[in-house]
Amino acid sequence: MKIVVIGASGDVGRFVVEELARDGKHDIIRVGRTQGDYQVDIASDESVDALFKKIGRIDAIIVAAGNVILAPIAEMTTANFHKGLQDKLLSQVRVALVGQHYLNDRGSITLTSGIAVDEPIAQGSNAATSNAGIEGFVRAAACDFSRGIRINAVSPTMLTESMDRFGPFFPGNESVSGARVAMAYRRSVEGVLTGRVYRVGH
Amino acid sequence: MKIVVIGASGDVGRFVVEELARDGKHDIIRVGRTQGDYQVDIASDESVDALFKKIGRIDAIIVAAGNVILAPIAEMTTANFHKGLQDKLLSQVRVALVGQHYLNDRGSITLTSGIAVDEPIAQGSNAATSNAGIEGFVRAAACDFSRGIRINAVSPTMLTESMDRFGPFFPGNESVSGARVAMAYRRSVEGVLTGRVYRVGH
Ligand SMILES: NC(=O)c1ccc[n+]([C@@H]2O[C@H](COP(=O)([O-])OP(=O)(O)OC[C@H]3O[C@@H](n4cnc5c(N)ncnc54)[C@H](OP(=O)(O)O)[C@@H]3O)[C@@H](O)[C@H]2O)c1
Ligand SMILES: NC(=O)c1ccc[n+]([C@@H]2O[C@H](COP(=O)([O-])OP(=O)(O)OC[C@H]3O[C@@H](n4cnc5c(N)ncnc54)[C@H](OP(=O)(O)O)[C@@H]3O)[C@@H](O)[C@H]2O)c1
Repeated sequence: MKIVVIGASGDVGRFVVEELARDGKHDIIRVGRTQGDYQVDIASDESVDALFKKIGRIDAIIVAAGNVILAPIAEMTTANFHKGLQDKLLSQVRVALVGQHYLNDRGSITLTSGIAVDEPIAQGSNAATSNAGIEGFVRAAACDFSRGIRINAVSPTMLTESMDRFGPFFPGNESVSGARVAMAYRRSVEGVLTGRVYRVGH
Repeated sequence: MKIVVIGASGDVGRFVVEELARDGKHDIIRVGRTQGDYQVDIASDESVDALFKKIGRIDAIIVAAGNVILAPIAEMTTANFHKGLQDKLLSQVRVALVGQHYLNDRGSITLTSGIAVDEPIAQGSNAATSNAGIEGFVRAAACDFSRGIRINAVSPTMLTESMDRFGPFFPGNESVSGARVAMAYRRSVEGVLTGRVYRVGH
């Protein structure tokens, strides 16, 4: 399969690439904002469309990119909240909406939510909203696609490899290895299910 | 209690007002875009802030306003999707973020999601995303508020009184009376729970 991984250099993405490249059966296209085989800004329609035009027909799209904003609710402004939604929720949805037209029949899309919607954390209202939105989108879009197109999300807890960055926000939370998280992306891509949220480590 | 109902003239809102006004124990402020005691545009920070400045300290905020965009996923553009998120998800969040500062201690916020996230419908990817986002926000914001501020959502199925508008999108779905839906808003306002999604009719 020809598989586009957006966020390929990230903590999640590099394990996804490693997992999918392991048995040599896939053609993997590494995409990032500044690194990889191709560059894209998933906050821009034009940029995402240009990316898929350059790459051509594909079998699977994986998005492991998009930030949330962590801030105490009492200090959260609508503008900041909006920025967080744009960065993660709308950017991932954009890749799905634009990318669907470049997928072969029975192709798949795999997005990335995160634990912060099931187990809220302090300062986590924006994170929970983006993650919940992605999961709601996946569940409903799955029922609306034709041509056998599938869509799922992977919801990892904090990666062991990301504990330096996220540990303070997830006190007492166990972490999960990037290698285990990556398996869920393979399950989504090579499996037959759609509309699923694969939780890993929680 | 002094209760602001935004969307007071709508199919949901008018039953909420009727229910809460029934026993004469609350001071209810009816708000809409064009009707009611006060007008507001919940798509605008300035307008929402001006509304609460005019009204002053309150005990409860209810939002029963905000539209979603129904469109087949294959035809959905990012721009339209964004518009739908702005209209419902971000507008309801805006009322919560701005309105929290005008709430008395132990005040409450009640938002409105909808069945389309639990039971996806054709053309429903935007609706599911907005509704899921609202529910995720409510769950996480509830853990982050201080001063005893609570936040819940009501998720109605299609109202019997709205069947003319929504019936074609919900084939074979039972409807629920506006009067029953309204009870959940009272439960949210007068109860002690927070972070809850009250599903009515589904
Ligand atoms: N890490 C965790 O523990 C964890 C846990 C749960 C959920 N998640 C979610 O998983 C996703 C990936 O997180 P991560 O920690 O792996 O991120 P990360 O380490 O910060 O890496 C981000 C990746 O995304 C790319 N990227 C950033 N902004 C982009 C843009 N505007 N357009 C295109 N690509 C962009 C970066 O590309 P370049 O390097 O080329 O600039 C990089 O490859 C996020 O949505 C995050 O919320 C992460
Ligand atoms: N009706 C249903 O069956 C149903 C089922 C599930 C969920 N819901 C959800 O419940 C909420 C209310 O739906 P509804 O059917 O009751 O709506 P509706 O009948 O269309 O009424 C909309 C109400 O919101 C006000 N409004 C509209 N845009 C506004 C804005 N930008 N700023 C401030 N107020 C605005 C209107 O004010 P004016 O009249 O003053 O202009 C009106 O009071 C929506 O979020 C909907 O998705 C509805």
